Amino acid sequence: MVDGALRAVRTDPALHLMLVGPIEVADELIGALDPAQRTRVTVRPVRAAVGMADHPTAARGESTVRTAVQAVRDGLADAVVSAGSTGATVTAAALGLGRWTGIRRPALVATLPAVEGPVVLLDVGGTLESGPATLARHAVLGAAYAAVAHFVTAPRVGLLSVGHETGKGDRLRRHADPALAALALPCDARYVGLVEGYDISLGARADVVVTDGFTGNVLLKAIEGAYAMAGGPPPKGGAPRAAALLGVGGTVVVCHGAAGSEDVASGIALAAHLWRRDAAGTVRALLADVPHESAPDRHDTEVAP
Amino acid sequence: MVDGALRAVRTDPALHLMLVGPIEVADELIGALDPAQRTRVTVRPVRAAVGMADHPTAARGESTVRTAVQAVRDGLADAVVSAGSTGATVTAAALGLGRWTGIRRPALVATLPAVEGPVVLLDVGGTLESGPATLARHAVLGAAYAAVAHFVTAPRVGLLSVGHETGKGDRLRRHADPALAALALPCDARYVGLVEGYDISLGARADVVVTDGFTGNVLLKAIEGAYAMAGGPPPKGGAPRAAALLGVGGTVVVCHGAAGSEDVASGIALAAHLWRRDAAGTVRALLADVPHESAPDRHDTEVAP
Repeated sequence: MVDGALRAVRTDPALHLMLVGPIEVADELIGALDPAQRTRVTVRPVRAAVGMADHPTAARGESTVRTAVQAVRDGLADAVVSAGSTGATVTAAALGLGRWTGIRRPALVATLPAVEGPVVLLDVGGTLESGPATLARHAVLGAAYAAVAHFVTAPRVGLLSVGHETGKGDRLRRHADPALAALALPCDARYVGLVEGYDISLGARADVVVTDGFTGNVLLKAIEGAYAMAGGPPPKGGAPRAAALLGVGGTVVVCHGAAGSEDVASGIALAAHLWRRDAAGTVRALLADVPHESAPDRHDTEVAP
Repeated sequence: MVDGALRAVRTDPALHLMLVGPIEVADELIGALDPAQRTRVTVRPVRAAVGMADHPTAARGESTVRTAVQAVRDGLADAVVSAGSTGATVTAAALGLGRWTGIRRPALVATLPAVEGPVVLLDVGGTLESGPATLARHAVLGAAYAAVAHFVTAPRVGLLSVGHETGKGDRLRRHADPALAALALPCDARYVGLVEGYDISLGARADVVVTDGFTGNVLLKAIEGAYAMAGGPPPKGGAPRAAALLGVGGTVVVCHGAAGSEDVASGIALAAHLWRRDAAGTVRALLADVPHESAPDRHDTEVAP
């Protein structure tokens, strides 16, 4: 975390960092900076962090992630970057910043370099139980995000399944396919139907690939493992280790739990990019213009019940 | 198909092929063979094939896959290899060859080269809706298959999820984890708990990775896409394009729907290897020795209802 934060401060001269965590970690970072750069770093000492093995609702108590979210809510910071437990970050962000109208389930959105890329993949773990209505809302989110954050014109949106022929897939995909086909999509996006696992790294069929958060999470990590097996990431870049959380009232980026300094720096850079483009606000406004079914999935539950 | 079959006949001098399909395709293949090899090829002319867009139950009518399965049932062939619709092959095999006692849901099993591999991944699309009981049965199947087909001693079995800490995952994984932990596993296998997407290509944590057929199918294709993005498969080999169907009364191999001649040849070689080791019979016998819950998953339905 310290090395990643150092990289970010040195790379982006306009960046200010608020460090939320143990004071000795913050001291280490500040000590490593040039005196001129130290004014760009402030510290909020918090000792308790939510562990990877803790239940996400542990984020309701005093913790680094909750304090960081509160700093955004109170206008003391513009964005949150966390490399802690994804569940805890999603819970803290949803409770602390609120969710957008019409978004019960926030989505974690990763952008992958692809042969004909980039490809926006969602959800990669913001919401582990998804029904057809959640996938449909996430399709809208992903289309708007591709246009706003990555300048994709008229994004092609696909639903991940086991074949591209209509009717292929499990019960969830068979119900979601017609729901996505009936959607009004923002930014001239259009639904291209079912896509397959390769399409995530090839990018020929879709710019946005929609799936449930369980599948997206294991897929993203499987692609990362495949690159390790292949001897390293491809020249265009490997699997991203930072993802944007969409659907909550602020800019929130989640880094990989095993993030290295480069990953943390890229997460901070992503947060700065999204905030400067007002991506969260713009995507939220685009969503508000799109009519949608108000009936949530029957099996949907609130965030971290 | 023709090129793949030619390769297989030329590579394996002990192999006999029964071609089930349009006569003109068979003629093309036989015409390309040396006269001495032609005696190793017989033909069963069948015109109707189940298309990729057809419902799997179309395999109940007269079709290439049904005829091929019947040839195994009647003792005219030892194994079936199909590059057609997976659902149609699973349905035809389950109906024509029967399912093993205690196996309601056959599993499609792929073996992936990995850094510390190989890794056996199941299910990659035999059964698209899985409950905890299905995952538990597939864990037993996978352990036995790793030992019998790939000579893995004391296989380590993991359940794919979004983190390796207990409690990580969606509802299905949270229910399946204790079910797998309580299993008696054959071949000195042991359950190592939750594993993540990277573990499929790294192989450090588990030799057998268990997941539902939807997730396994998209994962396998995502890894294939990642290798394409990385410039080609790694030296140890790319994602397999042939998988064994376990749980039905015979040797059945399913090739990728977009299989090239090399893939078809590797599928035929896999079928020959499995039949020569009597893998299906041995795995079935190992399963019969393992006690198991007889209660199926509540939401399980029969093959292609």
